Amino acid sequence: MSLLCVGSVAYDVIELPGRLPVEVLGGSATWFTTAAGFFTRPQLVGVVGEDFRDDDFEFLRSRGVDVAGLERKPGSTFRWHGRYHENLISRDSLKTELGVFAEFSPVIPQEWRGPDILFLGNIHPSLQALVLAQCRDAGFVALDTIECWIESARADLVRLLPRVDLLFLNDDEVRQLTGQHHLPTAARAILAMGAGALVLKRGEHGATLWTPAGVSLVPAWPVDAMEDPTGAGDCFAGGTLGYLDLVHDTSAASLRRALAVGTVTASFCVEGFGPRSLGKVRPSQVRDRLRSWLDAVQVDGAKVLADLDIG
Amino acid sequence: MSLLCVGSVAYDVIELPGRLPVEVLGGSATWFTTAAGFFTRPQLVGVVGEDFRDDDFEFLRSRGVDVAGLERKPGSTFRWHGRYHENLISRDSLKTELGVFAEFSPVIPQEWRGPDILFLGNIHPSLQALVLAQCRDAGFVALDTIECWIESARADLVRLLPRVDLLFLNDDEVRQLTGQHHLPTAARAILAMGAGALVLKRGEHGATLWTPAGVSLVPAWPVDAMEDPTGAGDCFAGGTLGYLDLVHDTSAASLRRALAVGTVTASFCVEGFGPRSLGKVRPSQVRDRLRSWLDAVQVDGAKVLADLDIG
Repeated sequence: MSLLCVGSVAYDVIELPGRLPVEVLGGSATWFTTAAGFFTRPQLVGVVGEDFRDDDFEFLRSRGVDVAGLERKPGSTFRWHGRYHENLISRDSLKTELGVFAEFSPVIPQEWRGPDILFLGNIHPSLQALVLAQCRDAGFVALDTIECWIESARADLVRLLPRVDLLFLNDDEVRQLTGQHHLPTAARAILAMGAGALVLKRGEHGATLWTPAGVSLVPAWPVDAMEDPTGAGDCFAGGTLGYLDLVHDTSAASLRRALAVGTVTASFCVEGFGPRSLGKVRPSQVRDRLRSWLDAVQVDGAKVLADLDIG
Repeated sequence: MSLLCVGSVAYDVIELPGRLPVEVLGGSATWFTTAAGFFTRPQLVGVVGEDFRDDDFEFLRSRGVDVAGLERKPGSTFRWHGRYHENLISRDSLKTELGVFAEFSPVIPQEWRGPDILFLGNIHPSLQALVLAQCRDAGFVALDTIECWIESARADLVRLLPRVDLLFLNDDEVRQLTGQHHLPTAARAILAMGAGALVLKRGEHGATLWTPAGVSLVPAWPVDAMEDPTGAGDCFAGGTLGYLDLVHDTSAASLRRALAVGTVTASFCVEGFGPRSLGKVRPSQVRDRLRSWLDAVQVDGAKVLADLDIG
């Protein structure tokens, strides 16, 4: 199988509460592929500047990422400066310097144009459309976005939805896109707009999968210590799609298992700082936590239903 | 088996956003027993005033509740007036008139003093202690409380914890009681204070069970339309303990199944207004939604673990 990711590769300056700002490798495609690298060998299409360090290319390669589509161009790499509030959830964007990303027009290498799974990371919806136009034969399309695009490029985004098999949105985004406050109503509105399925991301509370066939509830693993939530959403998508690619199966049942893998992968992201921290997690740790997660959601359904029938 | 509940029976005046205030039957023991009534025949100890209506006694009896311990005294029934904010989560208490509840000193009928399961609903911790002193042979003790008592009667409450098998608290309460913001840390602190297990209630996000043996994740059912959240916590406890009583089993595995029943029971509470609305829900509806819930959390753990071992 093949998993292609198009998104941003960046340097983030992160300010955690009570700490000095620290610059760290970041960007949606970086996080996504770092996470997917636990399960498969993702292909990355993106752009960086002349200042992008060789050891960061090397880091991505060490994660099994094919960086043949990561172009280095004259200018600076995309930089984002964010400051987290005390709750480690809300944050302020202090500065965004697009650099070479301002002119980014993704060109998918010819041999990558029919991926089994395509992940359209958080970039302008018109760029996501450009990628889709080049990857008409993509087997399964997933898309992530942010409030900024829902606000500024809503029509572009809405036009994409019928081409999307799996849409990743958080509470605020799904409300903003549909104008519905009540989440189940909003989720159904998203499906009516054409998306095949919606993963409603709820941060520390986990996620809910909405499909025309029904709903799946995917609680998050309660991590021992939250360090930095940056990249959690991309890691969730990366773990999810990485697993789907590994098993060569994008059926509904496979997707449920994939979301378990995704939520566990994301739990390691928030425990550390930066993609290299995630890269230090051993595959055996991921498997062990997945086993714990599966145990934590396990309920003997047949027994409880039988009990109530008797009662 | 037997399930004894001690708590408040009240008339609530509820103001939902954009609506006129409505008076309705309420109180922790009312909600708890109404919910538990789906699964067993709970015993209720509480106090009401002369204004408590016969048809409200009748309603409780219709739920299978043994009201022999519900005393009617000269004076007024406890009244609470609350106004919900637009989000239907936060609320202001506009007025609290204790009435006969001010002098409430629970006396457990002699033949009820050895219940298999005892639920100490939200009343002053010193009253909860009084009940415990009368029910030394209780097989399994569960306790609920609110911020007000954690603030004003912390020492009384903490003294009870080693006697409690199952403690129900929400995020704010567990943080307030332990002084720990991070919930897993706070949860472990609660266990260190002597409680046998903690159900961390997280409203629309569900609940997490913490025991010395580990954690269970219990996501909430996403209801179609939230009407009024009043009583949801008591219904969650009522469904949970009602099931435990039904199956005569308070083991850890049984408790997991019970929490599934509890969260589904609470989902019906928030869809309606007042205990009578919950009373109109048919047992078959509870079973059907439980089946849907079980399906929504179901993941083929053996398959996903095998997949990762190969990958």
